[in-house]
Amino acid sequence: MRRAIALAARGLGSTSPNPVVGCVVLDVNGRVVGEGWHRRAGGPHAEIHALREAGERARGGTAVVTLEPCNHTGRTGPCAQALVDAGIARVVHAVSDPNPSAAGGAATLRAAGIDTESGLLEAESARGNEAWLTAIRLGRPFVHWKYAATLDGRSAAADGTSRWITSGPARADVHRLRAESDAVLVGSGTLRADDPQLAVRGLDGDVTQPLRVVLDTHATVAPAARVLDDAAPTLIAVADDTDADHLKGRADVVRLPRAASGRGLDVPALLAALYERGVRSVLLEGGPTLAGAFVAADAVDKVTGYLAPALLGAGPAVLADAGITTIARALRLDVAATATLGPDLRVTAYPRRTEEN
Amino acid sequence: MRRAIALAARGLGSTSPNPVVGCVVLDVNGRVVGEGWHRRAGGPHAEIHALREAGERARGGTAVVTLEPCNHTGRTGPCAQALVDAGIARVVHAVSDPNPSAAGGAATLRAAGIDTESGLLEAESARGNEAWLTAIRLGRPFVHWKYAATLDGRSAAADGTSRWITSGPARADVHRLRAESDAVLVGSGTLRADDPQLAVRGLDGDVTQPLRVVLDTHATVAPAARVLDDAAPTLIAVADDTDADHLKGRADVVRLPRAASGRGLDVPALLAALYERGVRSVLLEGGPTLAGAFVAADAVDKVTGYLAPALLGAGPAVLADAGITTIARALRLDVAATATLGPDLRVTAYPRRTEEN
Ligand SMILES: NC(=O)c1ccc[n+]([C@@H]2O[C@H](COP(=O)([O-])OP(=O)(O)OC[C@H]3O[C@@H](n4cnc5c(N)ncnc54)[C@H](OP(=O)(O)O)[C@@H]3O)[C@@H](O)[C@H]2O)c1
Ligand SMILES: NC(=O)c1ccc[n+]([C@@H]2O[C@H](COP(=O)([O-])OP(=O)(O)OC[C@H]3O[C@@H](n4cnc5c(N)ncnc54)[C@H](OP(=O)(O)O)[C@@H]3O)[C@@H](O)[C@H]2O)c1
Repeated sequence: MRRAIALAARGLGSTSPNPVVGCVVLDVNGRVVGEGWHRRAGGPHAEIHALREAGERARGGTAVVTLEPCNHTGRTGPCAQALVDAGIARVVHAVSDPNPSAAGGAATLRAAGIDTESGLLEAESARGNEAWLTAIRLGRPFVHWKYAATLDGRSAAADGTSRWITSGPARADVHRLRAESDAVLVGSGTLRADDPQLAVRGLDGDVTQPLRVVLDTHATVAPAARVLDDAAPTLIAVADDTDADHLKGRADVVRLPRAASGRGLDVPALLAALYERGVRSVLLEGGPTLAGAFVAADAVDKVTGYLAPALLGAGPAVLADAGITTIARALRLDVAATATLGPDLRVTAYPRRTEEN
Repeated sequence: MRRAIALAARGLGSTSPNPVVGCVVLDVNGRVVGEGWHRRAGGPHAEIHALREAGERARGGTAVVTLEPCNHTGRTGPCAQALVDAGIARVVHAVSDPNPSAAGGAATLRAAGIDTESGLLEAESARGNEAWLTAIRLGRPFVHWKYAATLDGRSAAADGTSRWITSGPARADVHRLRAESDAVLVGSGTLRADDPQLAVRGLDGDVTQPLRVVLDTHATVAPAARVLDDAAPTLIAVADDTDADHLKGRADVVRLPRAASGRGLDVPALLAALYERGVRSVLLEGGPTLAGAFVAADAVDKVTGYLAPALLGAGPAVLADAGITTIARALRLDVAATATLGPDLRVTAYPRRTEEN
């Protein structure tokens, strides 16, 4: 299963709206004869890849798969049936499929007389699919906020300079996060200050570029902005009463209602529009303003902080107003991991949901 | 030597103006027959404790000691001579004594025909004595800034509440830092906001209470302030033209010139006054203002940050104006260690000195 989880992870960032799935097929003697992972929506599922590689050696063997094999005929045939047809004798899966339209695979297998077992390394496998599972549960994309700051929590110096707070290895790591996400998000403030390209660069292998999304109420994005180049698709979110004709042919435009707060666009409406387009995971790279709005909207599911061991004593904080005024209302997180990247620290944490507090 | 370093650490916070020293005496056959550490200034040095415990078994044996044995007759006799008298055949020390008045011990030993060796675990031993060694080198106390903050760098919420940002284990760890320091320092801002007692509480064993120091230009400390209780000695630093008669009998008072910046008291003058009183290590527990002044004065030698995995998005930053306005001038640190304390992270780091940049 550990191998299957590792295989699944190769699909991160390119399978949406589908989950990532990995599968290992063992023959009658327990030897690995096939491996596969789901590469992209519309393409074969992990089980099909693995069964193809195994061929006749699958007969009487075992399939180990990170997610319950699907039961429905979408763009591809149901995997449960394919496993039956291949003569597999035993199926072990980690996580049951929460998607009503795909679920029931285990029942189909069992009805066909296949020995099925579930729950092996379930937590680890679920973490590998955290974005998709959260998206299915909440009905909106999983939001991963990443930020870079000094130890004293500054995202830039007093004069606005911020290149570079963090080291090369930390910045390279951000490209990995981008590649694993379906969309990358910033606000117009970051666009104006940094003119970021927001594309994945410097990674080996087959990278699916994320959708670049800019929250730009008044459609102020400059025609020469790097985010409008052809390195990746781009979506500009503007207010529903904004004239955005000048963006035609340069980027997709989505019209959204304004935020109830009066500042910028409505975050839930944005997330709904992205979900509608098949986006299941978003990397929030926006500045402090947008991050504050997402925290206030309870729309941050994961936080990765790159902390540079440096002190500034002045300059903008990394997180602006999130509607929290007293210590008892602080958004508490659980640290899942810390790592060292060059001189910097990386902290990965998950907000405690209110029901868990 | 590792054992000797551990023994030395037991003296942290109670030996100033002397260093911490640990000593292990082995007999002719390499068996441990004596252990000692320097407990407090005026008391016997580590070597004397260990030799006493070893008695006649020291003859022909080896003394392993973290710092070069002293050569001068201070309040106690020179250790080099005591080692000679005990018939020790070999002395291994880690760090040479940088103190001109105490140095020369190794030469004395060698002249007496004792086999002497230096440099064993030198870096580790030096780290154990970092406060004293730095104080001797710079001619002022070693300053260790500790702070507690959220991941977004806030030391309190917007309404000023800060109890508790960090967890019980993190707060208990601060008492350990206090116990290892000669003095604990805050500004009048922290005194007014939190009325802290600043004494060491909750630690087992023999604790030397640090000197509590308050920077209070206008002698505004309230008569009922907890810092004036009898849990530990207290020193109030006021401006040289401030009337502090009302503090007589309640605390020691030191008069200092005002800072050149016009804000508060002169930091180098404060440190000189503390050094003069035998203080070799200071735990800076002040708020963001005082921490900023110390960073600006290049008077921070070590930083320990307790980072609570929580987000506030508002509230005072943990470090205020340190005279740094652009990213290239950020005070860069090297992270020496990270640890987990309950839910919190502890980051220990050392500023890179300009000559190392
Ligand atoms: N250290 C880091 O990790 C990091 C990351 C990114 C940026 N930055 C820095 O952050 C600075 C920019 O900060 P920023 O806060 O202005 O950037 P931002 O958060 O990316 O953009 C804020 C803008 O987004 C728009 N917006 C749309 N909907 C919103 C909503 N619901 N809530 C809030 N804003 C909404 C608003 O402008 P409209 O009204 O025009 O829509 C708002 O002014 C730059 O200096 C940049 O270098 C740092
Ligand atoms: N999270 C943490 O780790 C932590 C730690 C401590 C405090 N705090 C919080 O910090 C807040 C208090 O902040 P603060 O910045 O006012 O406290 P502070 O830094 O302890 O005190 C500042 C005061 O110190 C005096 N001072 C004397 N010499 C100075 C100099 N050279 N430079 C600067 N100041 C000098 C000044 O007052 P005079 O003119 O009266 O001398 C100044 O206003 C409280 O809310 C407290 O809870 C947080």
